[in-house]
Amino acid sequence: MEKKLNFASDYMKGAHPAILERLAQTNMMETPGYGHDPFSESARRKIREACGCPQAQVEFLVGGTQTNATVIDALLRSWQGVVAAQTGHIATHEAGAIEAGGHKVLALPHTDGKLDPAVVRAYLADFHADGNRDHMVAPGMVYISHPTEYGTLYSKKDLQDLRAVCDEYGIPLYLDGARLGYALACPENDLTLCDLADLCDVFYIGGTKCGALFGEAVVVPDPDRIQAFFTIIKQHGALLAKGRILGIQFDVLFTDGLYERIGLPAMTAAAQIRAALEKKGYQQCFGSPTNQIFCIMENRRLEAFGESVEYSFWEKYDDSHTVIRLATDWGTTDQETQALIGLL
Amino acid sequence: MEKKLNFASDYMKGAHPAILERLAQTNMMETPGYGHDPFSESARRKIREACGCPQAQVEFLVGGTQTNATVIDALLRSWQGVVAAQTGHIATHEAGAIEAGGHKVLALPHTDGKLDPAVVRAYLADFHADGNRDHMVAPGMVYISHPTEYGTLYSKKDLQDLRAVCDEYGIPLYLDGARLGYALACPENDLTLCDLADLCDVFYIGGTKCGALFGEAVVVPDPDRIQAFFTIIKQHGALLAKGRILGIQFDVLFTDGLYERIGLPAMTAAAQIRAALEKKGYQQCFGSPTNQIFCIMENRRLEAFGESVEYSFWEKYDDSHTVIRLATDWGTTDQETQALIGLL
Amino acid sequence: MEKKLNFASDYMKGAHPAILERLAQTNMMETPGYGHDPFSESARRKIREACGCPQAQVEFLVGGTQTNATVIDALLRSWQGVVAAQTGHIATHEAGAIEAGGHKVLALPHTDGKLDPAVVRAYLADFHADGNRDHMVAPGMVYISHPTEYGTLYSKKDLQDLRAVCDEYGIPLYLDGARLGYALACPENDLTLCDLADLCDVFYIGGTKCGALFGEAVVVPDPDRIQAFFTIIKQHGALLAKGRILGIQFDVLFTDGLYERIGLPAMTAAAQIRAALEKKGYQQCFGSPTNQIFCIMENRRLEAFGESVEYSFWEKYDDSHTVIRLATDWGTTDQETQALIGLL
Amino acid sequence: MEKKLNFASDYMKGAHPAILERLAQTNMMETPGYGHDPFSESARRKIREACGCPQAQVEFLVGGTQTNATVIDALLRSWQGVVAAQTGHIATHEAGAIEAGGHKVLALPHTDGKLDPAVVRAYLADFHADGNRDHMVAPGMVYISHPTEYGTLYSKKDLQDLRAVCDEYGIPLYLDGARLGYALACPENDLTLCDLADLCDVFYIGGTKCGALFGEAVVVPDPDRIQAFFTIIKQHGALLAKGRILGIQFDVLFTDGLYERIGLPAMTAAAQIRAALEKKGYQQCFGSPTNQIFCIMENRRLEAFGESVEYSFWEKYDDSHTVIRLATDWGTTDQETQALIGLL
Repeated sequence: MEKKLNFASDYMKGAHPAILERLAQTNMMETPGYGHDPFSESARRKIREACGCPQAQVEFLVGGTQTNATVIDALLRSWQGVVAAQTGHIATHEAGAIEAGGHKVLALPHTDGKLDPAVVRAYLADFHADGNRDHMVAPGMVYISHPTEYGTLYSKKDLQDLRAVCDEYGIPLYLDGARLGYALACPENDLTLCDLADLCDVFYIGGTKCGALFGEAVVVPDPDRIQAFFTIIKQHGALLAKGRILGIQFDVLFTDGLYERIGLPAMTAAAQIRAALEKKGYQQCFGSPTNQIFCIMENRRLEAFGESVEYSFWEKYDDSHTVIRLATDWGTTDQETQALIGLL
Repeated sequence: MEKKLNFASDYMKGAHPAILERLAQTNMMETPGYGHDPFSESARRKIREACGCPQAQVEFLVGGTQTNATVIDALLRSWQGVVAAQTGHIATHEAGAIEAGGHKVLALPHTDGKLDPAVVRAYLADFHADGNRDHMVAPGMVYISHPTEYGTLYSKKDLQDLRAVCDEYGIPLYLDGARLGYALACPENDLTLCDLADLCDVFYIGGTKCGALFGEAVVVPDPDRIQAFFTIIKQHGALLAKGRILGIQFDVLFTDGLYERIGLPAMTAAAQIRAALEKKGYQQCFGSPTNQIFCIMENRRLEAFGESVEYSFWEKYDDSHTVIRLATDWGTTDQETQALIGLL
Repeated sequence: MEKKLNFASDYMKGAHPAILERLAQTNMMETPGYGHDPFSESARRKIREACGCPQAQVEFLVGGTQTNATVIDALLRSWQGVVAAQTGHIATHEAGAIEAGGHKVLALPHTDGKLDPAVVRAYLADFHADGNRDHMVAPGMVYISHPTEYGTLYSKKDLQDLRAVCDEYGIPLYLDGARLGYALACPENDLTLCDLADLCDVFYIGGTKCGALFGEAVVVPDPDRIQAFFTIIKQHGALLAKGRILGIQFDVLFTDGLYERIGLPAMTAAAQIRAALEKKGYQQCFGSPTNQIFCIMENRRLEAFGESVEYSFWEKYDDSHTVIRLATDWGTTDQETQALIGLL
Repeated sequence: MEKKLNFASDYMKGAHPAILERLAQTNMMETPGYGHDPFSESARRKIREACGCPQAQVEFLVGGTQTNATVIDALLRSWQGVVAAQTGHIATHEAGAIEAGGHKVLALPHTDGKLDPAVVRAYLADFHADGNRDHMVAPGMVYISHPTEYGTLYSKKDLQDLRAVCDEYGIPLYLDGARLGYALACPENDLTLCDLADLCDVFYIGGTKCGALFGEAVVVPDPDRIQAFFTIIKQHGALLAKGRILGIQFDVLFTDGLYERIGLPAMTAAAQIRAALEKKGYQQCFGSPTNQIFCIMENRRLEAFGESVEYSFWEKYDDSHTVIRLATDWGTTDQETQALIGLL
């Protein structure tokens, strides 16, 4: 059987080769556990520098759902909930991890996967206007992802506006950067790591989907923002004993700006695929400019396509059409891209 | 500065070299996520075979606290608690992860870190004898670790007795095998993987401390024992996106019986260290026959010792003495062992 | 200052006089605590008889949110959520009590406050059709209220259809009867207590809003449906030490069929108010046939109205109109009703 | 069958007659719900005055377990646990309500049911001395009860010392006053309500066991101590819709100092019973000076005794003896006391 092209997701491969190389080099060294090792310290320094935020607390966790559950629990008090887009990962695909921690996800309507600052403001204004809301879950923070589940991006203006809304109501803003590497490599993006450090209370730099074997780096620009974060991480089962495995990976990713350009091959491939889709008359959805490409395919056509290409089913469009997702990644080759285009 | 000898713990190094090699070989392959990959499938098959349990459900999680919290939550109903030794890891050093899941740890007195079957039976008998216990947390399972926190081992007879107690009261038995590799390599151990599959409702085979970069393999001999385990794992933030990273590691560890002999160097080293301690008149504690060695050292002597050796503080013995722990591991060399002995 | 008319809610008065009388008569008797008293036993027998369900488990809890949180926790496993209308009480006005217990409320679109069986079936079918839903919260039960938050009623046919949907997917159906007394007294209602016992896995008979000082009677027609319910109630802080205070109240309410007719004065009053509203040209909302009357009032008119009448603000209708709620209850007098009509 | 004497507990009767009378008088009045009624306001004022604490927040909850779970959840952050005596109610007889809220009960050895300030200080000192405790549950508050489960009392000096320990470590002190009425009426007690307001961060004045039908009044001397307490109460299912039922009861209890003397009949009875026990040579336990009397009875003797008297089994003393509890209450009559003494 010939190997299929694989555009199903961006976590189908291992890690950037430089990471494996460094793991091998350092393998038999002995270091303290739980992130108290020199590799983790070095990675923290480099991330602080990349974020222009020398005092930031940086912690390394293993995966996205875990990171979201841990950070949200750390930011909320027991009676509070987290505002998110109805399409947000925490609202849909985390198996109730946020609720398992005792918190309601307060899901608001979205625009192409994004939370509109005006929608958030209207919601918060309505909540606080009415003196009778003490029987309801209080919105205690705002969660967004960048890129969103739909591959779309917040502009710097969007983020400034969300920040302003959060400030008006005194609640923190948290950004899930599971695919942040693809945002940073995207020509349409105008948000830097420094902007995130400036505008978010907490954000995380995704490793799993952006070149690491696994791992997410949580950045807390003001380390006083979260008390006892280490213990909270431990309580959530999110503390890696050999923390250096995370430290080494992020140390490599933040050496010579690798993380900020690791998504470039994915962007090049995605641009070519989008152009081909357009040329061939496919309707594209959600306006994603990043490494996730959404398009509508006729069901009969999809059947044949699926024999040669691994893709993601997104949702039914109508009785005879389907919305599918194609994802490129840091390791997508030109050869794979051209082969895919040939099959469209 | 000269490098210190490091006997502080058994998670100070990376992974067995064969693991890193295999990770490198397979790095650019594309496989499905979340453990639905051929490496994980292969590892499951090999583990089922090693456990003599062809129908077992095997799931790979990342770390010990996470695994305990997930399995315990999966086995208990909301009103139940988990019986454990007062010294059990879940009772002491998991930052309240079990309670965060809503469950009380019902801590019983221990004997050198072990739960005595008679103590458990007396507790359960007392609980169920009295009709008035419906204001109390019902014991819903028994948790043990093998080796224990004190390095001690359950005999096959012990485990059979605990199994019998659990059967009498209709509750499951769960064994935490964070350091299982060191039990399996220990001459005093008479419990095989097949025995564990036979006598436990759930147990986990520890990777993190036994040669993996990280990872624990949960074995559920009767797959009907736990419903919706995959979703429970996801809800606990314990599902690795690139599940194959776990699958590859356990596939290597269970190729040619590596796991069952990986602890041998640790045993050899520990035996030599114990002999040296005895010869030099140190008092040893808890009777641990595995890779954790506990001894009492005079504080002034310890100060000098600590300049050359990383060790673990265990507890104060008296005003002038301290109980310390020295841990060997799969990678401890004879050179290191001799150097340590020279310093005693 | 003259006393205002009070149509703000149905929990503004004390209890039916027969209840207070019985509390006084029995006050100095000594009985066991926690519901193990003869009054509670008598109330249980009468409720079982009224429900045509001699084997039912009946437990008395204190309030509605508490009852919902306790029953839902008892029916769900940790990874499951509860399906409810977006307007359901548990989805909106219980301050996150369900999420505090670890469960997501899976909110579906409603029709005048009701869950359409077809909508529930489509949701469950979609969830189970797709093999990939193990990253999502599994729907583990269905919650409805009767009457709903909008005062509307399920027909017997509706409830049979919901039952059929639940049976198809093997999940329990739970009915919140906070205002059940007003349903039972409503001419449009065709659901009896026996029907509820027949069609629901669990339901509760509301006391607080239907003539008691407080208290809700949970009925579990098949007592095997919930394990360890007593302990679950205790764990939720929902076990009244002097359980007889609840038992006495429900014993009175279920003597000579009082509960089934206690809502009649509320129905009479509501019918007259509805007729008056219609005659005077007010637009009524949601089609509630029970003791909650919703109508639209012009804001300037409302200001004057509010000087004489306590009402509930429901929601803004447009810039110049408001939806208000008027509630009648078991103690509403004809004099009050006529006075209110005079002010419309 | 002749009626047995009932000394089984202090919640066997209804309420002080003045409470029932006032409930009857006010029954048909219409007042706002959720504690926003004039009776609750009046009760709050009187309690504030009795506590010498005009700014205190006072909230009325329904029962003890509920109150403990709610207050503890309000005072702790997610990673913290509550320090209590091993015999504390929250550690033993609340069915895991505290753990269900996510918090570990950090149980310390007790002295006759009391927490020794020196033991608490040593525990906290040890926890904070060691920099490595971030894998453990952080002690976030101290819980005591007055009287304790063993009927014993803290002296003012004890409470000042506990306060000092809490201040040293910056954690709040919470006092469970389920039986506070019996402490206040006890000659050996030197702690006033004003002292409690002065020395505790939160305490509750027990109604259920001290003359009310049910209800506990939580006092928060500094209202800034707990944020969003109303919503937390609602989230815990602890908010009574007809809050006035609680307000009326505490208004009566705090009119003309009733609460502070309501326990006197219980004290008189207990003193006579203790004297009789001593005279007749029974060994008494724990040194309780309040309304709970503990003594050792020979099993054969107990069998006969139990035919005439309802008592509480406390624990097995040895193979032929049992520790029993006899409880007097606000309504115990001299006739009952003499009858009991006659049976000893």
